[in-house]
Amino acid sequence: MKLSKYYMPTLREVPSDAEIASHQLLLRAGMIRKSATGIYTYLPLGYRVIKKIEAIVREEMDRAGSMEILMSALQPKEIWEQSGRWAVYGPEMFKLKDRNQREFCLGPTAEEYFTSLVKDEVRSYKQLPLNIYQIQTKYRDEKRPRFGLNRAREFSMKDAYSFDTDAQSMVEAYMVMYKAYERIFDRLGLDYRIVLGDSGAMGGSSSHEFIALSETGEGVICFTKDGKIAYTDEKAPVHYQGPQEEEAKDLEKVPTPGASTIEEVAKFLNLDPKRCAKAVDLLIDGEACIVFIPGDRELNLTKLAAYTQVPEHAIEKMDDQAILACGSYPGFTGPMDLKDTRVILDQSLTKINNLVVGGNQEGYHYINACYGRDFDGEIAPDLLMVQEGDLAEDGQELLFRRGIEVGNIFQLGTKYSTALNATYLDENGKEQYFYMGSYGVGITRSVTAIVEQNHDDAGIIWPIHLAPYQVIVTIVQSKDQDQVALGEKIYQDLQDKGLDVLLDDRNERPGVKFNDRDLIGIPLRITVGKKASQGIVEYSTRKDMVNQDLSVDQAMEEVLKACEKIK
Amino acid sequence: MKLSKYYMPTLREVPSDAEIASHQLLLRAGMIRKSATGIYTYLPLGYRVIKKIEAIVREEMDRAGSMEILMSALQPKEIWEQSGRWAVYGPEMFKLKDRNQREFCLGPTAEEYFTSLVKDEVRSYKQLPLNIYQIQTKYRDEKRPRFGLNRAREFSMKDAYSFDTDAQSMVEAYMVMYKAYERIFDRLGLDYRIVLGDSGAMGGSSSHEFIALSETGEGVICFTKDGKIAYTDEKAPVHYQGPQEEEAKDLEKVPTPGASTIEEVAKFLNLDPKRCAKAVDLLIDGEACIVFIPGDRELNLTKLAAYTQVPEHAIEKMDDQAILACGSYPGFTGPMDLKDTRVILDQSLTKINNLVVGGNQEGYHYINACYGRDFDGEIAPDLLMVQEGDLAEDGQELLFRRGIEVGNIFQLGTKYSTALNATYLDENGKEQYFYMGSYGVGITRSVTAIVEQNHDDAGIIWPIHLAPYQVIVTIVQSKDQDQVALGEKIYQDLQDKGLDVLLDDRNERPGVKFNDRDLIGIPLRITVGKKASQGIVEYSTRKDMVNQDLSVDQAMEEVLKACEKIK
Repeated sequence: MKLSKYYMPTLREVPSDAEIASHQLLLRAGMIRKSATGIYTYLPLGYRVIKKIEAIVREEMDRAGSMEILMSALQPKEIWEQSGRWAVYGPEMFKLKDRNQREFCLGPTAEEYFTSLVKDEVRSYKQLPLNIYQIQTKYRDEKRPRFGLNRAREFSMKDAYSFDTDAQSMVEAYMVMYKAYERIFDRLGLDYRIVLGDSGAMGGSSSHEFIALSETGEGVICFTKDGKIAYTDEKAPVHYQGPQEEEAKDLEKVPTPGASTIEEVAKFLNLDPKRCAKAVDLLIDGEACIVFIPGDRELNLTKLAAYTQVPEHAIEKMDDQAILACGSYPGFTGPMDLKDTRVILDQSLTKINNLVVGGNQEGYHYINACYGRDFDGEIAPDLLMVQEGDLAEDGQELLFRRGIEVGNIFQLGTKYSTALNATYLDENGKEQYFYMGSYGVGITRSVTAIVEQNHDDAGIIWPIHLAPYQVIVTIVQSKDQDQVALGEKIYQDLQDKGLDVLLDDRNERPGVKFNDRDLIGIPLRITVGKKASQGIVEYSTRKDMVNQDLSVDQAMEEVLKACEKIK
Repeated sequence: MKLSKYYMPTLREVPSDAEIASHQLLLRAGMIRKSATGIYTYLPLGYRVIKKIEAIVREEMDRAGSMEILMSALQPKEIWEQSGRWAVYGPEMFKLKDRNQREFCLGPTAEEYFTSLVKDEVRSYKQLPLNIYQIQTKYRDEKRPRFGLNRAREFSMKDAYSFDTDAQSMVEAYMVMYKAYERIFDRLGLDYRIVLGDSGAMGGSSSHEFIALSETGEGVICFTKDGKIAYTDEKAPVHYQGPQEEEAKDLEKVPTPGASTIEEVAKFLNLDPKRCAKAVDLLIDGEACIVFIPGDRELNLTKLAAYTQVPEHAIEKMDDQAILACGSYPGFTGPMDLKDTRVILDQSLTKINNLVVGGNQEGYHYINACYGRDFDGEIAPDLLMVQEGDLAEDGQELLFRRGIEVGNIFQLGTKYSTALNATYLDENGKEQYFYMGSYGVGITRSVTAIVEQNHDDAGIIWPIHLAPYQVIVTIVQSKDQDQVALGEKIYQDLQDKGLDVLLDDRNERPGVKFNDRDLIGIPLRITVGKKASQGIVEYSTRKDMVNQDLSVDQAMEEVLKACEKIK
C-alpha cells in the first residue's frame, strides 16, 4: 500500500489519557482509536496485526483438533440464571432487553452458551471427546477500563470449550490445550510465565494462567527462583510468619488516643505490627462482617470471595454508621462484644498470643488478647495477600514480577453441565454429565503485551511475522524523479515476491516520514534518497536502526533473507 | 478432518419452524443452529463457508483500494441523535445502558460511526478520497425474524464507507464499488440483478441493490424484458393506467348495504374497481390520516413514509373507534366531510371522473365523485405498489421475480457529514462537508442466497470454491480393513495436495453416510467400497451424483482437475 492513500492517522502528541507505552504507541501509530470509554476501533495497521495473531491462534487450535464455530454475542438470560452467574457478574455484564422484553446479556464469556449448544446436539459418548472454539468479540462493563486494549469493555477473545466423558479425559484435553497455548505464546514471541491460576468466577478445580511479563501489567505473579513454583498474587497461598512466640499475658484495655491505624497503634505501643490484629469492616452481600488479619498484611479479596461464596462486587466497605451499629467505633474495631456481626479470623491469628485488638471504643485498644481465651470467630484458612519475600511451600523465597494475563485454561469438571443439566448417554445408555474445560486467549490484549515487550522511545518494534507490513520503502524526496521511480520499482518488486510492503510516497518532510516509520515499527526499511540515481539505497532494521548503504539488489536480498523464516 | 471426530450434527427431520429450503438445509446439514429467535450459531461446516465468502469480499474490497478496520458493535446514542436516526430505527434497534447509565445501541449499520471516526482524523483534502470497510456483526431487532440467516436479528455484514471532496468524486467512488460488487457476486456464483434501490432509512440521492434471484426471497423486483430497467417493487414508479375516460356526471349518494370492500362495492354497483377510491385509514405518527388510492391498487408504505417523512414503524392502522372519530364509518370512508383528519390523495385519482367513494355513513357510497368539484386533499405524486404487467417509463411491460437483497450501495451526499458536522479543509483552507457513500454486503445472507440457488431434494450443492470441504472420501464399511486403509491413504494424499478433505470413517450404516454426504453438499466424492482390495473406487460429483468406477489414480486425477480452477 502507498501511504499517500493509506488511512494511518499518526499523532505527534501523547494522548493525555493513555498511561502505558502500548496504549500510547498504538494510539500514536494510528493503529487504534477510542470510540467510547474502554471501546476501541482497530484501524488498518492495527487490524492487520490482530488478523495475524488470529491466524496463529486458529492454526494452533486446528492443529490441536479443536473446531471453529461462531456463537452470538447476545446470550439469553435463562442460561446464566441456571448457572447462577447472572448475579455473579452483576454490573460487569452488559444487559439488554429485546422488543419483546426478553432479557439478554452481551457475553463476557461463553461456558453456559457452549454447554447449552452441545447439550442439544451431542447425545452419545461416541461423539466425545469434543473441543470447539470461537474467535469472538466479548463484552465486560469494567468498572475501571484502562490501559487501552489491556482492560477494555469490548475485546476479542479466542474461547474454547472441551467436553469429555470423565475427569481423566478432561485432564488429557486440558493438557492438549496447555501445550497448544505454549505454542501460541511462543509463536507470538512473548516472554511469559505459566502460573497456577485463580479459577475466580469460572469455578472448577484447576487452572493455569499464561502471563506475559511486563512492568505495566495489572497483575502480579510470584515465583521461586528455580521457576518450579509460580502463582498469581491473588492465588498464592501465604505461609505466614508470625511475630516471636510469647507466653500468654493478661488481657488489658489501654488508652491509645488518636492511634487508629495499625502503624499508629504499633508505634504508640512500641510493638511489632505483626502483633496487631487488623480489622476490615465489610458488608458482604449486605450483611455486616468484620475480618481480622495480621497487622502487617492486606486482605485478599479474591480469597475472601471464594471463602464466603459471595462475588467480589457484592463485598463493600462499611461506612462509619454501620460500624457504630456493630457496637464498635471506626478505627478501633476489635473482635470482642460485637453485635449482630459476622466475625471471620484469618487462621494465622489463632496462633499469635498477646495480640493488640481494637477496644470497640474511641481511643482504646486491648493488649494481650488471645484467641479462644479472649475472643472467638469463624476461622478462615488463608485470607492474606502474598508479599514479596514470603516463603513458598518448599521454603524458597517468592520473587515478584508484574504481568499481563494473555491466556487462561480451566478444568471445569461438571460445574456447568450439572447446572444446565447437560448430559450424554454412556456405553450403558445411562445419562452422565459432561466433564468440561474452558480455554481463553486474549487476542486484543495480546497486542498490548507484544507492544509492551517490543518498543523503544521512538515507537513500536514489531516482530517480523506479526508486523502489519514487513517492509517499508521510504522515498525521501517525493519531488525527486529518480527517487520516486526507484522507490516505486522496489515497492513493486517486493510485492511481487509476496511480501507485505508499504511505500511512503507522501509529500511530507523527511523527518515526518522517518518519525512515522519508527513509530509504526515496520521491521525492515529501505530508504531511497540522494544516491538513488547511482542505484544505492539505505537498508536498516527497526530494531537496530543502523543504516547501511547497499545496492538495490543487496538491499532486496537482505529483505528477502529476513523474511525467509516467516514463509 | 475425520467425521468420526467432527462436530456435524445432521438432522433427519425438517425442523418445524424452517420455512424455506436454505433454512431447512443449513439446519439439517449441521451448519447452523438457532440460539434464540433470529439468532444463530455457525457450526464448523457452516462457518467454513462464511470464512470463504469473507475472503472473497476482502480480496475484492482490498483490490478496489478500500482498507479494512473494525469498529465496535456498541455505538453511543449521541451520534445517532445527531443524525436523527435514533428515533427512525425505533424498536428495530437493540438499545442498552452501561453501568454509568450511558446509552448505546448495537449497531444496525455504521454511517454515523464511520463519519464520527473520520471527522476526528481526516482534516485535509490531501487525505481524500478515502474508503474504509469492516466485516462485522450487525444487529437489528426485527419484528418478524424469519427464513433463518435471511432475516436474522444478528448477522454478519461487510459495510464500507467512502469519503470524498465533492459529488463527482463521490460518484466515481460509487462506481468503483459498483464494479467491485459485480465481481463479488460473480465470484459467489450468484444469479443476481442490479436494481435501482430504495434509499430507505439511509437517506441520500441514488442507490442500487444487488438482488439474488430466488422464489423464496422476501423482496420482489420488477424489470423489463431487455433488462434495461429494474426496480425493487417498493421503489418502482407506477405509471397508473386508469379506467376508460368519462364525462363528469352528477354526484349521487347511493345505498350500498353490506358492501364495504372494493370488491363488494364494484360488484354491487357493477363498476370497474379502478373507478372506486380505496380508503386506507391510518395513524401517522399518531395523527389521523386517510389515504385514497385507486381501488385496484395497494398502498406502498415505503413511498408513503418517504412522502410524509415519518418512518414506517410509526405508521399504523386506525381502529374502528378512531375511524368514527373522523366522522366516518369503517368500510365506508370517503374524502368528503371528514373531521380533524389529514387527507392524502394519490395523484392518479385527480384524473379519474365519476369515482365511487365512501359515504362516511354505514351502507352508503357516493357515485360520480370528481376531484376538485366534490372533494379535495393533499396530492401525493405516487403512493402505489407496482403490479406485474404495469408499464415502465419506456412503455415495456414489467416482469416480476422474487429475490434476496445481498448487497446495496448508496450515494449519501453530505447527509451524515452535515448532521455530524464532519468537515475537512479544502485547498483554500475552507471547511467543507465530506461527500459520502455507503456499501453493504450481507455475508450471512449471501449464504442463504447461495443455498437457495444451489440445492436439490437431497441437500445442498456447494460451488467448489465455497464448499466447506472440496472432497469427501467415504469408507462404506468401517470394519473392512482394506476399505479403511485405502480410504485413509486417499484422504492423506489429497490433504498433502493442499485440498480440504473430509473422511467419513464413522461406524454408521452406509445409507446414513450417503445421505449425510448428499445433505452437506460436498462437491467431489470418492467412495471406497467393495472393490477397495482391487484398488477401484467410485467417483462422483454432488451435482450429478453419477458414480463411476475408477482406479485410485484416476479418481485422484479427477479431483485435482476439478479443483484446479480454484487454486
